[in-house]
Amino acid sequence: MSGEDAPAQQQNAEEQKPQQQDGEPKNESPQTENNPEATPGEPVAAAASGEAAAAAAPADKPAEEDTFSYRALVLTGYGGYDKVKLQVKKGKPALKSGEVMVRVKACGLNFADLMARQGLYDRLPSPPVTPGMECSGVIEAVGEDVTDRKVGDKVLVLNRSGLWQEVVVVPILHTFPMPEGMSFEEAAALPVNYVTAYMMLFDFGHLRPNQSVLIHMAAGGVGIAATQLSKTVKEVTIFGTASASKHEVISEGGVTHPIDYRTRDYVEEVRKINPKGVDIVLDPLGGSDTQKGYNLLKPMGKLISYGAANMLSGQKKNLFAVAKTWYQQFTVHTLSLCQNNRAICGFHLGYLDSELVVDVMNSLLELYQQGKIKPRIDSTYHFEQVGDAMRRMQERGNIGKIVLTTEPMKEEPKKEEAKKDEKKEDKKKEDKKKDEKKKDEAKKEEKKEDKKKEEPKKEEKKAEEKKVEEKKEEAKKEEN
Amino acid sequence: MSGEDAPAQQQNAEEQKPQQQDGEPKNESPQTENNPEATPGEPVAAAASGEAAAAAAPADKPAEEDTFSYRALVLTGYGGYDKVKLQVKKGKPALKSGEVMVRVKACGLNFADLMARQGLYDRLPSPPVTPGMECSGVIEAVGEDVTDRKVGDKVLVLNRSGLWQEVVVVPILHTFPMPEGMSFEEAAALPVNYVTAYMMLFDFGHLRPNQSVLIHMAAGGVGIAATQLSKTVKEVTIFGTASASKHEVISEGGVTHPIDYRTRDYVEEVRKINPKGVDIVLDPLGGSDTQKGYNLLKPMGKLISYGAANMLSGQKKNLFAVAKTWYQQFTVHTLSLCQNNRAICGFHLGYLDSELVVDVMNSLLELYQQGKIKPRIDSTYHFEQVGDAMRRMQERGNIGKIVLTTEPMKEEPKKEEAKKDEKKEDKKKEDKKKDEKKKDEAKKEEKKEDKKKEEPKKEEKKAEEKKVEEKKEEAKKEEN
Repeated sequence: MSGEDAPAQQQNAEEQKPQQQDGEPKNESPQTENNPEATPGEPVAAAASGEAAAAAAPADKPAEEDTFSYRALVLTGYGGYDKVKLQVKKGKPALKSGEVMVRVKACGLNFADLMARQGLYDRLPSPPVTPGMECSGVIEAVGEDVTDRKVGDKVLVLNRSGLWQEVVVVPILHTFPMPEGMSFEEAAALPVNYVTAYMMLFDFGHLRPNQSVLIHMAAGGVGIAATQLSKTVKEVTIFGTASASKHEVISEGGVTHPIDYRTRDYVEEVRKINPKGVDIVLDPLGGSDTQKGYNLLKPMGKLISYGAANMLSGQKKNLFAVAKTWYQQFTVHTLSLCQNNRAICGFHLGYLDSELVVDVMNSLLELYQQGKIKPRIDSTYHFEQVGDAMRRMQERGNIGKIVLTTEPMKEEPKKEEAKKDEKKEDKKKEDKKKDEKKKDEAKKEEKKEDKKKEEPKKEEKKAEEKKVEEKKEEAKKEEN
Repeated sequence: MSGEDAPAQQQNAEEQKPQQQDGEPKNESPQTENNPEATPGEPVAAAASGEAAAAAAPADKPAEEDTFSYRALVLTGYGGYDKVKLQVKKGKPALKSGEVMVRVKACGLNFADLMARQGLYDRLPSPPVTPGMECSGVIEAVGEDVTDRKVGDKVLVLNRSGLWQEVVVVPILHTFPMPEGMSFEEAAALPVNYVTAYMMLFDFGHLRPNQSVLIHMAAGGVGIAATQLSKTVKEVTIFGTASASKHEVISEGGVTHPIDYRTRDYVEEVRKINPKGVDIVLDPLGGSDTQKGYNLLKPMGKLISYGAANMLSGQKKNLFAVAKTWYQQFTVHTLSLCQNNRAICGFHLGYLDSELVVDVMNSLLELYQQGKIKPRIDSTYHFEQVGDAMRRMQERGNIGKIVLTTEPMKEEPKKEEAKKDEKKEDKKKEDKKKDEKKKDEAKKEEKKEDKKKEEPKKEEKKAEEKKVEEKKEEAKKEEN
């Protein structure tokens, strides 16, 4: 996260180049064949050799250095879902002083990753590059001068990019010990969404008892985090936008007034209940919604912009949507702010220094241990399914976080034997999650069918163009 | 302060009209002759008849209603210092339910009053009108349904306008009991500056330990309040701009790094000490200084704009200065805010609802009682000297608050007899203050002379135009 290091490049170790011709997707295919060999043995071996592993390895096991390989997702160029490929990187990444090597178990999918794929996020180095701002895993080796992390520690990792791979090397400052009882999926789901929600609500927003918050995309990762965090303050009224099918879940999660933005004007709905407006608006949409949110602010109210989801329309960069969102993007004059006693804030974790995040992460892990926050996992996808995962998020199918697991997709339970020790507790959860995922996918299918039924009925003979327009509108403010 | 009531008009009671032809200053002259008769007896009489005074008065004492008069400062039109006249209003103001009548002792002078005089502040009703957002005094009568204030209570008063007169009628919500040991001058100096500083630092700014603040005009009323309030948070670094002659005082007051903006570039000075910038900038200047302040913000930093002092140049509205400040006024795009993780906030107490202010005032009065804050009175002027008071503020001669006293100017100590009971404790303080004032005025004189010496020496034969330009430059960022 800090400005100085860009571990993503570091981690694109020796052997990846042949696979990564920018803009040449046809030359590339996932090379998952090698990985069963690379994955299971490593943590145990490293754990056995203890803290000396990293230092001892170069001299004692030159052969291992050569054969070391790991699967990685690589953004090969800007465009659609197929631009992210599963590849194999070879060669053991070097460990510098103050760094640790982590065997990754699960990764979080974020809106920034979708933006990055369309070339709309300048904090990701140019393709070919491994995306990924957060993951969880087990420390496999430690560099020199690392005293407060040891091999075998389970950690959450937050980094500017480069975490969607089986092995990552990061500064220890970017790792945080996982609390007792936290699953790897939860650990991968927590950092970006909760740090974002926390800093927006409590630093910029300064949320206090009896205040009110408008949370857009309340069923999304940040939305659910923001809801849970708002609930840690007494008597906070939460307005949350989401499509009607998600209202039950977000109400249970703490949203006081769910609003179906598809069938209602959210501004009117908020005013009906709070004629004076709200104290905080969390705005991931951008474009004209920022102005609407600004107008909804009470005196001393704060609008916090943290993205421009309205720019994302369709799989590939949509110049029209980008231009429209940009054009409608809110600008404000300080005299207007003064006369209204309002604040407008911008937040993007990708542009933030790590040092500020450390305290926030520690506060969050404490809240987790107190049972006050708990990431809601929408679904877990294998690396091989990253395209489906991104599609689900972009089409706002999810309720909660979409997680990628490094677990290979092939159904070969025997291969899990070697990992059993550290996997026991996680297995049950994973099974549950798989069930949940299946349910979710079933729901998704249902929903798709519903959509299909509805649309043709209404306007059976209208031009194709009009349909495209409608889909854009629908997708526009759906939860991610 | 609230949006609904405009007590200023209410208080322009029956007999004032002949004096207040808009834009006809020559017809008007202070009518102080009447007031010795009106002033001294009232509080005692009202106190004697107790809480029933207001209700009983109309029937029992029609004569008193007719003879009731009080001195008031009235803005007669937009323009120079002479536009504020001392006049006599006749007729006892009516008291509605929930209101109290206050015999005013002292009033605060604020930057908004200077803006208003030039027609640059739209929250003051059109002339003729009595300005004044804050005062202190003694409750002389209470309306129906008033249970938590009684005749004789000393109070601080905060109102949208209309307080620069000897008698004011305000809703009790706008009054706050004066703590033990607080002088009337302190009470008149506290509300606007401290509420402003408090809400900016702690609500918008969310100031926390180890952070840093840049306070412009650090020797002004808000500047000193902001310094004292910042000091209530541990290990806060305070950068304060002020001309060199004021550095000793502001350092003693808590400014860590005083910066003479006249001889140094404050941006460079801050960067020398804090290369990464500051967490909070309090910006009363507007224009190009807002952009400078914005650029000085650390990630998660907040710039809080609370005025456009740069617009004030010279006695009368200076269209060039207004246009320039407006033109240079900062506008910001939300995407820029996001990429920098910054906030920009606007604050103006004059546009704020009273309900939000009540809690803040109570917190402030508690801090006063704990000895953590104490208004610094720069000087006290009689109503008759309001022009001098405004000049001192506009020319940034003050260090701390300029207060107006309702005490008549004529040196007739015998007249004080009637008020002795309630005045005993205040007299000593007032004497002290008079001494201080004399000293200050002496300093002012010295300074004026210094200026006079300096300027002609440098450019003795340059055109008048150039001098005017220079004076503007000098006055621009001086403390108010």
